[in-house]
Amino acid sequence: MNAPAHAAHLAPVVQARPVPQVFIDSLKARFGENCSTALVIREQHGRDESAFAPVPPPSAVIFAESTQDVSDAVKLASEFKVPVIPFGVGSSLEGHLLAVQGGISVDLTRMNKVLSINAEDLTVTVQPGVTRKQLNEEIKSTGLFFPIDPGADATLGGMSATRASGTNAVRYGTMRENVLALEVVTASGEIIRTGTRAKKSSAGYDLTRLFVGSEGTLGVITEVTVRLYPLPEAISAAICSFPSIAAAVETVIQVIQLGVPIARVELIDHNSVRMVNAYAKLGLREEPMLLMEFHGSPAGVKEQAETVQEIASDHGGNAFEWATTPEERTRLWTARHNAYFAALQSRPGCRAISTDTCVPISKLADCLLDSVAETEASGLPYFLVGHVGDGNFHFGYLIDPEIPHERDVAEELNHKLVSRALRLGGTCTGEHGIGLHKMDFLVTEAGEGAVNMMRTLKRALDPHNIMNPGKIFR
Amino acid sequence: MNAPAHAAHLAPVVQARPVPQVFIDSLKARFGENCSTALVIREQHGRDESAFAPVPPPSAVIFAESTQDVSDAVKLASEFKVPVIPFGVGSSLEGHLLAVQGGISVDLTRMNKVLSINAEDLTVTVQPGVTRKQLNEEIKSTGLFFPIDPGADATLGGMSATRASGTNAVRYGTMRENVLALEVVTASGEIIRTGTRAKKSSAGYDLTRLFVGSEGTLGVITEVTVRLYPLPEAISAAICSFPSIAAAVETVIQVIQLGVPIARVELIDHNSVRMVNAYAKLGLREEPMLLMEFHGSPAGVKEQAETVQEIASDHGGNAFEWATTPEERTRLWTARHNAYFAALQSRPGCRAISTDTCVPISKLADCLLDSVAETEASGLPYFLVGHVGDGNFHFGYLIDPEIPHERDVAEELNHKLVSRALRLGGTCTGEHGIGLHKMDFLVTEAGEGAVNMMRTLKRALDPHNIMNPGKIFR
Repeated sequence: MNAPAHAAHLAPVVQARPVPQVFIDSLKARFGENCSTALVIREQHGRDESAFAPVPPPSAVIFAESTQDVSDAVKLASEFKVPVIPFGVGSSLEGHLLAVQGGISVDLTRMNKVLSINAEDLTVTVQPGVTRKQLNEEIKSTGLFFPIDPGADATLGGMSATRASGTNAVRYGTMRENVLALEVVTASGEIIRTGTRAKKSSAGYDLTRLFVGSEGTLGVITEVTVRLYPLPEAISAAICSFPSIAAAVETVIQVIQLGVPIARVELIDHNSVRMVNAYAKLGLREEPMLLMEFHGSPAGVKEQAETVQEIASDHGGNAFEWATTPEERTRLWTARHNAYFAALQSRPGCRAISTDTCVPISKLADCLLDSVAETEASGLPYFLVGHVGDGNFHFGYLIDPEIPHERDVAEELNHKLVSRALRLGGTCTGEHGIGLHKMDFLVTEAGEGAVNMMRTLKRALDPHNIMNPGKIFR
Repeated sequence: MNAPAHAAHLAPVVQARPVPQVFIDSLKARFGENCSTALVIREQHGRDESAFAPVPPPSAVIFAESTQDVSDAVKLASEFKVPVIPFGVGSSLEGHLLAVQGGISVDLTRMNKVLSINAEDLTVTVQPGVTRKQLNEEIKSTGLFFPIDPGADATLGGMSATRASGTNAVRYGTMRENVLALEVVTASGEIIRTGTRAKKSSAGYDLTRLFVGSEGTLGVITEVTVRLYPLPEAISAAICSFPSIAAAVETVIQVIQLGVPIARVELIDHNSVRMVNAYAKLGLREEPMLLMEFHGSPAGVKEQAETVQEIASDHGGNAFEWATTPEERTRLWTARHNAYFAALQSRPGCRAISTDTCVPISKLADCLLDSVAETEASGLPYFLVGHVGDGNFHFGYLIDPEIPHERDVAEELNHKLVSRALRLGGTCTGEHGIGLHKMDFLVTEAGEGAVNMMRTLKRALDPHNIMNPGKIFR
């Protein structure tokens, strides 16, 4: 194959380490039926939503039911120097869950209890397998909500591990800002706590934020305390079509620069609208569109909406179509959240390679428009959606995995996009993480010195390199 | 002395390491006049605002003018295994700047340039010696401001290093939430960058937040990129007196639980009001008071203020006294910021031992009122101020440093207060840091496991233990 070097990324480097039978036997003795070596179970736990070619699955899957289970599994793995890969719902887009160095998967979905709701303090503590939708369901009666919404109904453990964010982050921040405290099983199997329920603290190194975004490479998150927010008195959502992506993006830039506390502002390009229409019969106008949500008091929401409408209209935006009832809002947001699956359906058998650059808001138009032009010129089917209020957007390149050339083209486009974003002061990943796919980009972005420091931290906390090895850095 | 063990904290353990003359000679050769060994300069750099007994000053002070200067100084120090203590304006309250293991002070106040204002992105990059007031002065024409306000006109480098916050944190967060990127000189003298100007990122370990709050123990911060915010269209400040601290605190708890986006809400007890009145002839009513500020659109500010007034009035609060002009507001906030110095003046020759607990908001009344009762019973002069919207408050115990018994009583009170805060799910330090004073509290709060992990990180990044050694942990 004459593919450029970066095309190789989608065939992960597999360097499986030996997993001794005596280790598997020890797991079975300790976990009984909660340790599975059935191929179908192992295969389910050896893949994710990324476009990577399959690799051999983990040797066993432990269904952990308690922190002690996790600790015992990690202690055994540490003894035998076998890799451990924490597993939630498997919604990673970056190959985090592939057992590239072999090992075992620790499935945390049975640790799905909401442990304590502290409504008065606007905090909740959950086990790592609780998903964001489950959490919001369970706290509904409190009048509070958890805003972080990466699209997938991911687990709080997984969202912490990848520093997830999504549609509400423009107003409420990311997991970085919203995780207050963690319980973690370290690489030696020790159980530690980071942080407290206090809203702020200067007590020593910020271990909480060291684990948030560590992608399972430093330990297993077994408990998460996050902030909650009062459900806004008033919520309204609106869509607005624009004559061009440029017009939509310029609108967003002005909204952010004016400090409008918009809760969500999502760009959906004409391709995505077309795909979502076909998928869910929505009948939306097939033009670039902003999907927005305003939270606040009734007067505040009205004020925000008026400001944004004025800016949109200056940029040729059409009249807002409002969705004020919860049902209408759900319909619109479901459309947004289905964009990914609608896109996959638009080309049967395809896989999506998703980009994740994030740039300072003033550079958003520069970065995005040049990349749209490049992608159009490539002829590859694609869609574009974005949490544009944060300067974060995703191209989805829809490749036929059987056609190597398409994969190369997609990788080439991604490479150019990331280089552009880095030149503009941005990052290669706003919310998906490094995983397997962006290890080279990380070095370009952070520099050898910073990546070496990350490696030093990894070696110090995981001397046998058993925690999700082969991710983030080589 | 039969003082309890914790009373010993205020006499720091001094374990000065040798500082070879050849090292000092090398510094002088490299830095010329920017390396001072004059006693008066060294003494200025060997103390801070804490109540610790003086210790021998550092052996030399380097006045760094560039990142390269810092790097060269650290490289020499690393070669000779001599401690390095970064120095800003010296406003630490926790003994961070005391040369308890000897070494040199690196003064960063000449690195005081605002490097780039990115008004469109609401970010600014500064050298570490820029103070918060200087920064706000230099960006005034952009219509933006930097909200973090710890009271003292601290440097951005120092504020980053201690994870500072202060009066505006209830709305705008702390340094943890507002630092986007850093340049850091590591313990080996290498220059690295952490983070980018993108608003969010999932690119590897969060080195930025590892250095934010590391109290100079992992490296020297040589550049800071922080978020800015649009100056609110409308600002009003108000004070409101209450019949009791309990009534004021209950008001705050309700305001926060309702999700009112109040920008500042400070508790000032009757002692503080009395001291401030005496210091600045303010004629404020000598009762517990809340000093509040509302930011937003004119309508939004009005709405917030009405909600808060209603809650205050339910708790026996007096009518608000408003300060809408900048001059009036400055007068009120100057009063708040002068509370510390007013308190020191209220008892000539005294030193203040400042507490810094922070608890979940629902526990604020429990924690605070019991501690007020204890402090009253002790007979020690004190004042109480607090960023109560965050659950963070400071008792200042005004001790005569010549009377060991008073120090013991203050330490005993602090000890009880911290124990209470930890029992209630809080932290021993909301914003001052651990420094020399709270090392034992950190172990109680975080647990041996977490503190050992911090030690492991420290050893990995600073193997010769030269970066501000003896702080955070023993």
